[in-house]
Order: sequence, then C-alpha cells, then structure tokens
Amino acid sequence: MWNESGNQWPMNIYSYYVGYNPPTSVNPIPRFPRIHNNAFLSPFTYIVGNVTIENNTYVGPFVSIRADEGTPFYVGSNSNLQDGVILHGLKNKYMEKDNKRYSIYIGNGVSCAHGSLIHGPSRIDDNVFIGFKAIVYNARVAEGCFISSGAVVTNGVELKPNSFVPPGANIDTQEKADRLSPVPKTEEEFAIEVQRVNQEFPASYSLYFGKSKCTCGLSC
Amino acid sequence: MWNESGNQWPMNIYSYYVGYNPPTSVNPIPRFPRIHNNAFLSPFTYIVGNVTIENNTYVGPFVSIRADEGTPFYVGSNSNLQDGVILHGLKNKYMEKDNKRYSIYIGNGVSCAHGSLIHGPSRIDDNVFIGFKAIVYNARVAEGCFISSGAVVTNGVELKPNSFVPPGANIDTQEKADRLSPVPKTEEEFAIEVQRVNQEFPASYSLYFGKSKCTCGLSC
Amino acid sequence: MWNESGNQWPMNIYSYYVGYNPPTSVNPIPRFPRIHNNAFLSPFTYIVGNVTIENNTYVGPFVSIRADEGTPFYVGSNSNLQDGVILHGLKNKYMEKDNKRYSIYIGNGVSCAHGSLIHGPSRIDDNVFIGFKAIVYNARVAEGCFISSGAVVTNGVELKPNSFVPPGANIDTQEKADRLSPVPKTEEEFAIEVQRVNQEFPASYSLYFGKSKCTCGLSC
Repeated sequence: MWNESGNQWPMNIYSYYVGYNPPTSVNPIPRFPRIHNNAFLSPFTYIVGNVTIENNTYVGPFVSIRADEGTPFYVGSNSNLQDGVILHGLKNKYMEKDNKRYSIYIGNGVSCAHGSLIHGPSRIDDNVFIGFKAIVYNARVAEGCFISSGAVVTNGVELKPNSFVPPGANIDTQEKADRLSPVPKTEEEFAIEVQRVNQEFPASYSLYFGKSKCTCGLSC
Repeated sequence: MWNESGNQWPMNIYSYYVGYNPPTSVNPIPRFPRIHNNAFLSPFTYIVGNVTIENNTYVGPFVSIRADEGTPFYVGSNSNLQDGVILHGLKNKYMEKDNKRYSIYIGNGVSCAHGSLIHGPSRIDDNVFIGFKAIVYNARVAEGCFISSGAVVTNGVELKPNSFVPPGANIDTQEKADRLSPVPKTEEEFAIEVQRVNQEFPASYSLYFGKSKCTCGLSC
Repeated sequence: MWNESGNQWPMNIYSYYVGYNPPTSVNPIPRFPRIHNNAFLSPFTYIVGNVTIENNTYVGPFVSIRADEGTPFYVGSNSNLQDGVILHGLKNKYMEKDNKRYSIYIGNGVSCAHGSLIHGPSRIDDNVFIGFKAIVYNARVAEGCFISSGAVVTNGVELKPNSFVPPGANIDTQEKADRLSPVPKTEEEFAIEVQRVNQEFPASYSLYFGKSKCTCGLSC
C-alpha cells in the first residue's frame, strides 16, 4: 500500500524527535530542550520541553522525556537512560535541589536500566542505580542507592544514602524506607561496572554520526 | 557509517506510522485506522488495522495499537494512551458493547498511564484510570474504576463500577474482583486531574503541527 | 515550530534503524546485523551490532535489539519479538549452545510477548513462551517452557524442559526452578496458537512493503 507512491519503504534511518512542549494552561510557554554536545541521543528518542541533559549522558532508543506537564527535568553528567525509559511529571509538584525546584532531578553517574519509569516529583542523587522496569514516583533517592528490578519507590518516601531496595519491593512508607539495608558489595560493584560501560557510549556512538550536534537537535 | 552516503544523520523529524493490517488467515481484509481530526498522534506512534480513535484523544510516543490479530479496537473521546502503552488482542475473542463486538473497547475519558498494556478481549468503560505498567487482559472494567500501578486484571473477570484495584494486585478470579473496595476520594480526584491535563494536549500539540490532519495520517 | 521550515510535519513513514555497534573497549569491532530476507522488521525497530535473525521471525514495533555490550545475539526461525521487547546483554558473559558462545541465544518457535525483557547472558531453547512484561536475565530456559506474565527468571537458574512459571513468580534460585510444575495443557495450546498467528506475520507484512529486503536493512 505504502509502496504505491513509489517511495522506498521501509527506510533505514536514524531519527529522533526533540521539540518544544505545547503551550497549555499548566505550561503556557514552550521551551526547547538543552542537550549537551557530548550527550548522545539514540534513534527513536523523544524529548520535549524544559529538559537539560548534561555532558556524556547516554539516552537509549524508545526513551521518552516528556516535560509537557511537570517541569523542568534535569539529567546530570555521565548518566544513562536505557531502552524504553520514561520520564514524566505531575504538574506543579517539585523536588528541591540546591535551592532550585525540579519536577525531575537526576544527578551524575545515575543508571536508569531498561524499562524503568521515573515520574515527577522525584529527585535522584548521584550514583544511583535503578533496575529493570523499576518505578520511582514521588520519591527522593539519596546518593548511592540501588533499586533492584521491578521495585517501586513512591508516596513521598526518602531513601537514605546507600539504601538497597530488593527486587520487586514496594517501598511506599517512610517506615519501610528507613528499614532498608545498605547496598551489598556485589550490587555496588555491578552498578560501577554498568557506569563504566555506559560512559563509553556517548563518544563511541557519536563517532558514527558526526560530532557537531547542537542543542537544536539537528546535526549541522 | 551511515554518514558515508552524504546524508545528514541523525535527523530530527516528527514521524509516526499509521497503516493497514496485513492480510492473514485471521484477518483477510486489510483495514486502515479511522482517526478523528482532533485526536493527536505523537511522534513514534504505531497504529495498524481496524482501529477507531475518537475526538480529542491523546496518543503518546512509543504507543503501539496493533489490530492485526484481535480486531476491531475502539478508543473513545477525551481518552489518553500515554508513553509506551500497547494495545493488542487475541484473534476471534470479543467483548460486547451496545450490541457490537470489539477485541478492545475503551470508552470516553479513560486514562491509560505510562507503560500500561491493554490486551483484547477487553472492555474498559468511561472514566477508568489505568496506572503505570498495569495489565488489563481478558477483562471487563466498568465505569469509574481505578487500577493502580503494576496491577493485573485478567482471566475473564468483571470489575463493578467504581472498583479500586490496589498497587500490584493480581485480580484473576471473580471472587477477588467482587471483594474490591470503592475508589478512595484521593484516587478519584487524581484521575480527574490526569484527565484535565491530558484533555488539553490534543489541541495544544496539534497547534504546533498544523490543523488539517486527515484520517490517512498524513498532514495535507 | 517545526512547520516553519515549510516541511510537512508530521510524516507518516515506515522507518527502522539497523546499524553497527559503536567501537568500545568491550567491543572494538563494529558489526552489522544479519537479518534473513524472510524475517520481518516492523516500523520503529532498533537493531545494532552482532545480531542474527533467522527465517520467518517477526520483530514488532519499539523492539530494541542492542548488541553493543554483551554480544553476539541469535534469534532462530519462526520466533517473534512482540511490541516493546528489549534484548541487551552484560559484557563478557556467555551461554553456550552447540559449542558456541552467545550473550543471548533464542531458539526456533519462541514467543516473546509484549514488553518482555531478555537480558544476557541468557539462553532460551525452542518453543518457549515468554509472557507479557516477563524478565529473563542470566538464565537458561529449556525447550517448551512457559513463563507467565510479569514473572522473573534470573540468578543463573536453569529451567528444565516444559517448566511452567506462574504469573508474577520470581524464580531466583535453582531450588525454586526445580520445583516448577510442567506446563498445563491450556497454556501449551495457547503457546501453539500464538505461534500460529505470529508465523503468518513475516510473509503477510512483507507483502505490503516489497520482498527484496537485503541484510543491509534497506529495501532495494
């Protein structure tokens, strides 16, 4: 059917979408993402609105960073948002970091593994690991925490630095959050290894597609 | 590597895929989706087959609406299918609504939150909220139900109007379905708020991309 | 905004991305996927690196097959990777099959249902069914197993042939794996039916887009 027009379908192309949030009553002013030259956006990344992505951060395919309701979003340096990760936030709800307000704040050296969902308001400090399909929503996750696969951290809880959330756990009260054990050595080393691998990606992937990508999202 | 051809990769484009289901022994006749002019399809939406999407419904990025097995699918007005939502159905299994048969029927004002999966045969009546990564499969969900994050509703169960499914619950018998409590006030208000935000999206997003989108999926 | 350039956005196109893995310290040599002419890649499929996909295998939209860390990946004939499936692997970890080493080995007639995640090192033998949003990670799954929705199989376990993993189960010790029941008749028949439907897709979908797709991913 699509061939009728004479076009060559399917096409093998590398495309993503980076654009303004649409003006709504919640966010009347359209904002364009700020993406560091040395961050890397994979094919089929989607990013809209007031989003900052810092140096050497890897964004995988099918990642949605949709700052069209809760806003702004910040993702620090040397972090990775792997395949299928979703960032979205509730309107008018914020977490503070250094006296600034964010819908989603993600620090440096954070790994968000395949299929994880970060929903604002949420603040995730440096060197946190978030496992496969885990959910962080309305939560503050301090430095060095390890959230295992399929776990949920929510309901306004605050995780102390270096807390370990076991696979599939549902941390929805501060009491549960306070009882968490420190991150075991094996998981700590695993998180460092994941960082090591992912921090090579922005430069190595970029090498294949030219170096001069400006914040407009277009390669020029 | 891709640069060798002289093409400018990567490209920042807004593209989706809307097309016919392929003819198979189950569905020998290719059908094209019917999408209301005032619905909004995000970049990287995928829709094939006998699918109806009504007025002012928002379809997020990485949403797959694949009516190539179970069919037809219907999505009413003022609903939203958020990032990563999947609609698919088993062949030759149906739910009835107003004496018509559907693989998937979704009413008006329904919110399907990030990463939720609706698998036919399923019928979801008006003003239902379906949470993050929840699964509805072979189920009938009456008006005003609230299905929390990570919950599963399946095995042919019917939820009564205004039933509340707690986070992570597995509702796989009618007995469990019948024991559910009514939706708490907080969740009810939350669902209304999500509707309010999402109902602004079709018009505001469309404003950025021209208004005359016909059902062929191409802007003309 | 995007309209300013006079371009016609949005575009209804069929595009995927098939490309080399980027050279890193782990995988210094870029490799291009080998995809059988009679496999089918949906719009918005993403595949990089040393990946083999055999005859008559269906790859759905938003599937990520990312052999940029663990490698190689193999997917046999008549298998299906449905919407949103992710394949990725840890570096330098392997499973053996016929004296060869794989990060991910998937046999013939395997169904990976919507949103499932296969993370290497993993080996999945013929005629296995993997349910909605299930996770297989560091595991060996023998012929004919049925892994239900939302289940997790991990921690180096080996499932015996024809093992049944119930919905949401967490099989993370060999003891748990050894106690599993055989696949019930209903699930066995269900898995066969899913195969029947999906094995029609590659030919029927391909019919719509021309037949001569070579392994470069471009239709010529």
